Amino acid sequence: MDVKERVKQYIQGHRREATALLKSLIQQQSVRGNEGKAQALVVEKCRQLGLEIDLWDIDEDHTLTTHPAFYSDRTDFGGNPNLVAILKGSGGGKSLLLNGHIDVVPEGNEHDWHHHPFSGFEKGNRIYGRGSTDMKGGNVSLLLALEALIKLEVKLKGDVIFQSVIEEESGGAGTLATVLRGYHADGAIIPEPTSMKLFPHQQGSIWFRLLIRGKSAHGGTRYEGVSSLELAILVVEKIKELEIKRNEKLKQEPLYKGVPIPVPINIGICKTGNWPSSVPDLTILEGRLGVSPYEEIEAAMEDMELVINDLNNMNEWFQLKPIELEWFGARWLPGRIELEHPLLKTLQNNYFHVEQKQPIIEASPWGTDGGILSNIGNIPVVVFGPGITEKAHDSNEYIEMNDVLKVAEVIACTIIDWCETQKEDFQYRKE
Amino acid sequence: MDVKERVKQYIQGHRREATALLKSLIQQQSVRGNEGKAQALVVEKCRQLGLEIDLWDIDEDHTLTTHPAFYSDRTDFGGNPNLVAILKGSGGGKSLLLNGHIDVVPEGNEHDWHHHPFSGFEKGNRIYGRGSTDMKGGNVSLLLALEALIKLEVKLKGDVIFQSVIEEESGGAGTLATVLRGYHADGAIIPEPTSMKLFPHQQGSIWFRLLIRGKSAHGGTRYEGVSSLELAILVVEKIKELEIKRNEKLKQEPLYKGVPIPVPINIGICKTGNWPSSVPDLTILEGRLGVSPYEEIEAAMEDMELVINDLNNMNEWFQLKPIELEWFGARWLPGRIELEHPLLKTLQNNYFHVEQKQPIIEASPWGTDGGILSNIGNIPVVVFGPGITEKAHDSNEYIEMNDVLKVAEVIACTIIDWCETQKEDFQYRKE
Repeated sequence: MDVKERVKQYIQGHRREATALLKSLIQQQSVRGNEGKAQALVVEKCRQLGLEIDLWDIDEDHTLTTHPAFYSDRTDFGGNPNLVAILKGSGGGKSLLLNGHIDVVPEGNEHDWHHHPFSGFEKGNRIYGRGSTDMKGGNVSLLLALEALIKLEVKLKGDVIFQSVIEEESGGAGTLATVLRGYHADGAIIPEPTSMKLFPHQQGSIWFRLLIRGKSAHGGTRYEGVSSLELAILVVEKIKELEIKRNEKLKQEPLYKGVPIPVPINIGICKTGNWPSSVPDLTILEGRLGVSPYEEIEAAMEDMELVINDLNNMNEWFQLKPIELEWFGARWLPGRIELEHPLLKTLQNNYFHVEQKQPIIEASPWGTDGGILSNIGNIPVVVFGPGITEKAHDSNEYIEMNDVLKVAEVIACTIIDWCETQKEDFQYRKE
Repeated sequence: MDVKERVKQYIQGHRREATALLKSLIQQQSVRGNEGKAQALVVEKCRQLGLEIDLWDIDEDHTLTTHPAFYSDRTDFGGNPNLVAILKGSGGGKSLLLNGHIDVVPEGNEHDWHHHPFSGFEKGNRIYGRGSTDMKGGNVSLLLALEALIKLEVKLKGDVIFQSVIEEESGGAGTLATVLRGYHADGAIIPEPTSMKLFPHQQGSIWFRLLIRGKSAHGGTRYEGVSSLELAILVVEKIKELEIKRNEKLKQEPLYKGVPIPVPINIGICKTGNWPSSVPDLTILEGRLGVSPYEEIEAAMEDMELVINDLNNMNEWFQLKPIELEWFGARWLPGRIELEHPLLKTLQNNYFHVEQKQPIIEASPWGTDGGILSNIGNIPVVVFGPGITEKAHDSNEYIEMNDVLKVAEVIACTIIDWCETQKEDFQYRKE
């Protein structure tokens, strides 16, 4: 049996252990500021595998917080470290970085969950819980792939650099810290929940806030005021027009065929007024501007700024009280490798090898830490993972264990091809 | 000099004292739950005038809170009493109720005020402060009118019932308490800020809340969700259509000529979403439905219910997730007396007597405690006061002292005509 078959068998044979690891990772709820305990489980696993461990609090080094790509409103990272664990190759092969985040978004309204969001409830093939799909399942795929290679004593030439980072959900400070600490590789895979699609291109995004000012009045004489909500509806319409304009050409791109809105502009928050009987004089809209993999984030920002400037210049009311546009909070850089890139090809081949069908190759509808790895770290990135895209951040988030194992197989086989094996591995002949 | 001239002279001669009283009333800030100290000043004034005092905590009697017209989310009224103070007539004349509220709305953002909102800052003819216009200025007009009649020993036949009530701003529980305590009269004047217009018709209003449900999704694939904000924009448009429909005929009414929207529907609050990158799945709209003086409040509610039912029946999404409509918080009953009513005529005549011009007669754009007095108490009401309509509830609220004195004159003269004077008053002959 060749090495890849043995690796696949090993992975399928350790479903129970992988499930147990995933459940205990979910049970250590790792929302922002509380990543330490879940991270400790990952560290323990890496020690058992004999990996070289680098564990550090990311704010130790002031180069992080002053870096232009640093976005975080968090001030204390102590006790919730980043982890890098290395499987050292013998040299001569290409290195591969495997990056997963340990932080999860908050569980939302607990009443919307059928089971406790941090129970790790198992039902058939599914494991439920916040972080199951985004992205502790993917992390388990990585660890299981490494375990298979190590236990089967597959001797790699290139290094495999496993990273378990914090702060992905709030802008990537954890992964930025790995880059600034000097970690680099010839390629990277991030097993975010792609529903097992390959994402060589990744949408970036940036948050905006719009302050739209009206004029207050009593509701009984509302014609004496100017409703900031009605003004906001105008602005929303203009933003929709911009979204159409920004997506027209993009829909022709091969990776966006059939995607209704490749880079959406989402308005997620609207806050207006404080008294039912008063004409509201301030509306705050907050949203997410999708950034195409084929543009700089600054170009997308300029598109939005032009729309707001036009409104401020053309509309009589806004001439008087201009809309204010702020960029705030997190931003995720877009990322892209060419479709002929050998990393993508290697993943494609091994996907076919495992699944016996061609993978779906798309552009991701969201940013990942891949933006930082590629833009700041100059590392080619493919995002590919077992989680279910739609379930990320949702209540009753779950993952299919079958997918966790399959992705582990694809990644383990990809490592073998990418990092290359030493000759003595030829001992694994077909039996 | 006849009695009315003497009364007018007295009032003009006591500008300084009236100003001082108004300033001290403003300085005793009387937002909800804190009306006691300002009320104490009114009580003191009424005692000085020798009026019969009735001072009581309105929740003493359980008939109030169980009454169908009771609307308040307040549970403790203790220490912030209602006041009724009576100038007893000799009998045989019509009685007149003078109703003012002592509560004020919160000051809002203190930074929007040029002077402290409770300083009672004086500049020229103006007194600034929360409650100056709405409606401590009007209350001072009432007290000054009474003082003039008492000090000049004008002997009235009918009773004058002065009321200083709490809870007007939140639905009228104070005035309802006076009705349930048995206070009744042949007519009532409420000196709310009408900018010295006469309001024989009053708009009522009721608050509504709309819960509009969408479907959440990640902003990067927003087409997989259904934005509750976009749904809300649909609803807002339908509400605007309803507003147009409800006001078409009303604009023909004599008292609404030139009013752009006689009974507006105001959306004062919009709350949507909690994360910029998520498609929002719940939008809450809160607003005020204006109720015409010529309809029952239930008919207005039904108009709105029909629109929402139509949306829920016709729109595919709302068939799935119906919009919920709630009536909540305060409601103000509409009120109306015929335009030939003798109380209105008496006020009109005396306005002309004081101002040497005809008053503007309109329908009020908001509800007052007049709705309770007329609907529950069966008392004919005219709203007429010195405050400036647009300044009510606004920052830098102020009142013109000239208007306070003029309204005091008009009301004092109206009392003389309405309640009638005894023969011995003929001593005041023209000199």
